[in-house]
Amino acid sequence: MNPLSSWRQRLPSLPVLQWGRAYKRETLLSDSVAALIVTIMLIPQSLAYAMLAGLPPEVGLYASVAPLLLYAVFGTSRVLAVGPVAVVSLMTAAAIGQHAVAGTPEYWAVAITLAFLSGLLLLAMGLLRLGFLANFLSHPVISGFISASGILIAASQLKTLMGVKAEGHNFVDLGLSLLSQLGQVHVLTLAIGGVTVAFLFWVRSGLKPLLQGLGMKPRAADVVAKTGPVAAIAVTTLLTWGLDWQAQGVKIVGSVPQGLPPFTLPLWDLGLWQQLLVPALLISVVGFVESVSVGQTLAAKRRQRIEPDQELVALGSSNLSAAFTGGFPVTGGFARSVVNFDAGAQTPAAGVFTALGITLASLFLTPALYYLPQATLAATIVVAVLSLVDFSILRKTWHYAKSDFIAVLATLVATLTVGVETGLVVGVGVSLALYLYRTSRPHMAEVGLVAGTEHFRNVQRHSVVVSPRVLSLRVDESLYFANSRALEDRINNAVADRPGLEHVVLQCSAINDIDASALESLEAIDQRLRGAGVRLHLSEVKGPVMDRLKNTEFLHGLSGQVFLTHYQAIHELSPEVV
Amino acid sequence: MNPLSSWRQRLPSLPVLQWGRAYKRETLLSDSVAALIVTIMLIPQSLAYAMLAGLPPEVGLYASVAPLLLYAVFGTSRVLAVGPVAVVSLMTAAAIGQHAVAGTPEYWAVAITLAFLSGLLLLAMGLLRLGFLANFLSHPVISGFISASGILIAASQLKTLMGVKAEGHNFVDLGLSLLSQLGQVHVLTLAIGGVTVAFLFWVRSGLKPLLQGLGMKPRAADVVAKTGPVAAIAVTTLLTWGLDWQAQGVKIVGSVPQGLPPFTLPLWDLGLWQQLLVPALLISVVGFVESVSVGQTLAAKRRQRIEPDQELVALGSSNLSAAFTGGFPVTGGFARSVVNFDAGAQTPAAGVFTALGITLASLFLTPALYYLPQATLAATIVVAVLSLVDFSILRKTWHYAKSDFIAVLATLVATLTVGVETGLVVGVGVSLALYLYRTSRPHMAEVGLVAGTEHFRNVQRHSVVVSPRVLSLRVDESLYFANSRALEDRINNAVADRPGLEHVVLQCSAINDIDASALESLEAIDQRLRGAGVRLHLSEVKGPVMDRLKNTEFLHGLSGQVFLTHYQAIHELSPEVV
Repeated sequence: MNPLSSWRQRLPSLPVLQWGRAYKRETLLSDSVAALIVTIMLIPQSLAYAMLAGLPPEVGLYASVAPLLLYAVFGTSRVLAVGPVAVVSLMTAAAIGQHAVAGTPEYWAVAITLAFLSGLLLLAMGLLRLGFLANFLSHPVISGFISASGILIAASQLKTLMGVKAEGHNFVDLGLSLLSQLGQVHVLTLAIGGVTVAFLFWVRSGLKPLLQGLGMKPRAADVVAKTGPVAAIAVTTLLTWGLDWQAQGVKIVGSVPQGLPPFTLPLWDLGLWQQLLVPALLISVVGFVESVSVGQTLAAKRRQRIEPDQELVALGSSNLSAAFTGGFPVTGGFARSVVNFDAGAQTPAAGVFTALGITLASLFLTPALYYLPQATLAATIVVAVLSLVDFSILRKTWHYAKSDFIAVLATLVATLTVGVETGLVVGVGVSLALYLYRTSRPHMAEVGLVAGTEHFRNVQRHSVVVSPRVLSLRVDESLYFANSRALEDRINNAVADRPGLEHVVLQCSAINDIDASALESLEAIDQRLRGAGVRLHLSEVKGPVMDRLKNTEFLHGLSGQVFLTHYQAIHELSPEVV
Repeated sequence: MNPLSSWRQRLPSLPVLQWGRAYKRETLLSDSVAALIVTIMLIPQSLAYAMLAGLPPEVGLYASVAPLLLYAVFGTSRVLAVGPVAVVSLMTAAAIGQHAVAGTPEYWAVAITLAFLSGLLLLAMGLLRLGFLANFLSHPVISGFISASGILIAASQLKTLMGVKAEGHNFVDLGLSLLSQLGQVHVLTLAIGGVTVAFLFWVRSGLKPLLQGLGMKPRAADVVAKTGPVAAIAVTTLLTWGLDWQAQGVKIVGSVPQGLPPFTLPLWDLGLWQQLLVPALLISVVGFVESVSVGQTLAAKRRQRIEPDQELVALGSSNLSAAFTGGFPVTGGFARSVVNFDAGAQTPAAGVFTALGITLASLFLTPALYYLPQATLAATIVVAVLSLVDFSILRKTWHYAKSDFIAVLATLVATLTVGVETGLVVGVGVSLALYLYRTSRPHMAEVGLVAGTEHFRNVQRHSVVVSPRVLSLRVDESLYFANSRALEDRINNAVADRPGLEHVVLQCSAINDIDASALESLEAIDQRLRGAGVRLHLSEVKGPVMDRLKNTEFLHGLSGQVFLTHYQAIHELSPEVV
């Protein structure tokens, strides 16, 4: 490979060139139908998540235009639908809340800056191929975090559903704030919100079987059910207008400016950037993880492929475009991508058409939103996010692996009691610490020969033959600095306990790597054993490990031998037990 | 085991009860001889390391009495000699330098507080069985750190050897400071220092062969060579007194108070404690690692045993005792422990006798130190620490493992350019990050059947038989959250690339653990493969891994089977290649 082509391989690619060139008329139809359905679903979501982020509703529409176009150019998923999503909107609110007051122009400017920084970070991670960093967010930590975020989001919407004021970026503050307001509940608002919530839950669970019972195909019934929020918006808006509920104190969305997304710039304030850096990084990583897992699940169904590093570039471009068009941080959304897929989208052109639909909506539809009750939007959020809450991960990890359970619990508790950013950082920290702790205390078993075979098993679990002159030790972990001293301790103790010992044989079949610390430990072990008149042998060393050991003085100076199989070692060192 | 005995096992033990009860007259003699030799060696070291730490010389003597006694009670090594050591003294100077001016009573008070905190931390780590935390300091990082510290210590002594003033806690500051003072070099001081350095180097390398040539036994020659610093001190002190070098500007130690170690208390200042916490932790860990590795090496020679957690208790008690008797942070020293061992010490009673010797010295010997030139002490430090400097670790790790090389280099550079504390933190951080990076990109090989055998090998390295319908994949790493997505990517891509694929078989022989994230990834892989009409199978799953998988839904819902051997899998799934 010449240097030029190697360099070009590192440049971001343009997937649009692939699917765009091969675009056909049949695809146009299915993409358009999918786009129409996603647009209908995306309008209420955009308005609601903008409200969740503390921003005016039109900002949600702005954030659903340019990002979709940019993703269509750079993204590798055929069906991912990019835009505002619940968890990222919550994290946005938490991040901006420390710098500006919700509802002010400064607040919006900080949101734009946050999208800009998040875009830069994603783009940089993509160009530097740092996508693997997202892997350090473990599945249980993400599950715990998303469930806790769902609860926080639902709790944050209670104030709108109840028609009161409450503040707080964690469950404790929010809960106390809400409790103090219980006397001021606005009954009509609560009724609108409550009925909408009940209706939306029924749409989710009851409508689909009903439609299928009426002879509709399952997929079509699914799509119709997704229009539930739009119906709720239409009905409550009409009722509020017709019955003049605004005069009775129901809060409405009010006038939403008509027009194209504006051209905006982030704040050029290095001090602010520094303070927003960590939130922007966390938002980027969470958004990336959510987006890639949705994209991969859908791509696999059609045997297509997602390139995680290219996805970073695509999401980075999307967020940068959001920053320049009055939006806020976006990522690929789960529900709307599934709808896009189910409705038959074939290429990212469906995203382009969706962007067109949202543009039309923000040009012509906004006056119709004037009488939309805020409680209706809050109800759509509550119903959407409660499906994210799933505590089965606690039960699952409790039974499967306690260390994962601890990581989930720490994430949940920290997110609910302190906030989203702390929750994520604690989750990553705890899971890394537990992983290191586990690998630093590897499972080591003294093994013995199963009589009449060439197999070796743990002496504590099986009835096996051993010689008092030979210690056979199997280590079930790669040897590295954090666990090499554990091996030293184990062997030192064994030698101190067994006066008749002459040979120690390490069965290395489960050792995938030996780092320099472990090599020094092996040298020290060999030297100490030699001082005590005991020889050290190895058996079943893996190819790649052996390749590296061959270049070292350790193998040349080793007091014992390296055996291909453990049986050969025992056969030679203690023929009496074979 | 009843709860009481389990609880008692967690209490620190008193090794003195073991060796003290069995004490015999023969042991008394060999312990006394060893103690005499160690005392002669320890006096100049104590004075010099106190000077290195920026403390008056008598503090070095104080720090060599009570800690030896406490270690004799709690320590598990028979021969470890506790007291001031070079690297810990350097770290002490760096830590206190931020809070007080060297030579003032405040400085000494902070040193006492540092010893107190370090003692508390060590004791807590011992009682909580946290000794394994020290394992996260990898061998290469320790090597790099000790070499860099050796250079820093030698550079810090140049000012005393040259008779000038210079400041700085890293190599850059120290070097610039020294360069600006080159014009003020005091020639007679430099001559005393230079000749002493040359003499001490000759004692190390030339005297021993000479003595052996004269018929002395190697061990005795070794012991005589260790008295070199005492000879240098005696001769230069006599010359300074006799030729009145003090009048010519040679700096001397001056009056050292005669008497027993004083009773002192740490400063009860929570703000100061908070600031000293990190330095104290680093000093504790470095001291513990140095002490335990010396102890283990010597114990192994006599098939004795070191209990790391009990060592923490012993070193913690030693440091606490140093804090209450006017000392500063101490740990087990390498050179003096080896001398103690070689001179025939049998039990920690040798340490008790050494403490007695140092007490006598601080009662009666201090007036004789009045005319001792400071340059002589600096020379003994320089010669002692230059033996710590060993850059062969750079070459060794470069050839063996690049990630270890990077960790050493980062530690070296950070220690020399910023300082000891930053150096250590950077070293630990870099080596952990590289370990996680490595395990997050595990080695995965597609394997095929070696014709005519039941063995499977990497298709890229060997000529093997494969079926286009079956993908055999071997993962050489435990599966956990940081690498489970890499497996997903690999399998997704393989499925996208091979339209005829029907089966994926994971050979799990090198997988020592599967955490909850990896389990979810396997479930996701299975689901996606199923969507694409491909079945997932496992082979050669280890016992402990299988035990845990058995309790999960994954195995029950798996689209494929679990095979005992990979050969069985291929035999059943693609009999045409067998």
